[in-house]
Amino acid sequence: MDAEGGEPGMVRPGGRTARVRDAVLRAAGDALAEHGFGGLDLADVARRAEVGKTTVYRRWSTPAGLVADLLAYMADQSVPRTDLGSLDQDLAANARLVVRTLTDPRQGALFTSVIAAATCDTRTAKALHRFYEVRVKEWAGCVEAAVERGELPAGTDASEVIRAVSAPLYYRLLTGGGALDEAAADRAAEAAAVAARAGVYVS
Amino acid sequence: MDAEGGEPGMVRPGGRTARVRDAVLRAAGDALAEHGFGGLDLADVARRAEVGKTTVYRRWSTPAGLVADLLAYMADQSVPRTDLGSLDQDLAANARLVVRTLTDPRQGALFTSVIAAATCDTRTAKALHRFYEVRVKEWAGCVEAAVERGELPAGTDASEVIRAVSAPLYYRLLTGGGALDEAAADRAAEAAAVAARAGVYVS
Repeated sequence: MDAEGGEPGMVRPGGRTARVRDAVLRAAGDALAEHGFGGLDLADVARRAEVGKTTVYRRWSTPAGLVADLLAYMADQSVPRTDLGSLDQDLAANARLVVRTLTDPRQGALFTSVIAAATCDTRTAKALHRFYEVRVKEWAGCVEAAVERGELPAGTDASEVIRAVSAPLYYRLLTGGGALDEAAADRAAEAAAVAARAGVYVS
Repeated sequence: MDAEGGEPGMVRPGGRTARVRDAVLRAAGDALAEHGFGGLDLADVARRAEVGKTTVYRRWSTPAGLVADLLAYMADQSVPRTDLGSLDQDLAANARLVVRTLTDPRQGALFTSVIAAATCDTRTAKALHRFYEVRVKEWAGCVEAAVERGELPAGTDASEVIRAVSAPLYYRLLTGGGALDEAAADRAAEAAAVAARAGVYVS
């Protein structure tokens, strides 16, 4: 269970349709983590989920449709932001969560697969952008609270601060250039906080 | 011609072998930009380059081999860093170059293709990481000069500062979240400079 990714399988209302969706999206996530977007096959996902092939084809139609729904699901299921009472602590918590997600074998593989898929598929790109929009908006609350407490200048673009925390961590993941560890997380959080205090993100 | 990407075709020594390599790598870059890594086909590249298929297969063997050589070539050909005499100006020049590269239709498509390919191919990943290592090292000179001028604290990790400039720009490219324009470039450069001055990148 992880805030960036959000796993299917939580207890919640919905009955059979929701249980089928949980099972299929969990299986889709497993398949993506193992084989990437290029290896995502609806029949294989149906088999893994122990759901009829026809059901999967009827509801999700294509691999891109399945990934778009998985991303929507992940956005809905991801855990809420922290509220630790200080910008530094909240940004560090966010950065460490991103590092935990990207270094988790299943979640990390799932994210890199989806990012790669988004570079060549418009529907996946839209779903991925929407996922990050939801997550960034959730964590932007920490920055807005810091502005209200007077820790940051008025007019600070809260979403930009949150993106600034994630950016160096995703950049490491995709281009190399150092370990993705707690030290990297803390540095990313500190850099964003320092720049935000200096007014760099005032729009 | 672009420092991040470096185009084949410059006048330099080498004779026929070098001309063949130039033509093949230019064709490979075109094919990658048009169809992505999944659509990279050695016979198609040979046809585009007007070079014998056997030559291409003998020298590069696989699409991954071709991309690895293209990245090595791009690293060799890319233009040197600026030396404008102040950290702020040099980082802004670097950030604007990254934005120009990522928003150039051919170069942008080429970079996203190669980043996507690197997520599922180890050899491409190594070649991509090596490319960024070379480019980061080149621009790190700006930061080292700023340390020598006393603009930044001693012990600043110059490569980390350069990566901090690129990171938010690549993050925008891959996850959405705003335009990739000069304003984004200048903000990325300013954030990195402010954090560097505060000692965030002292290792």
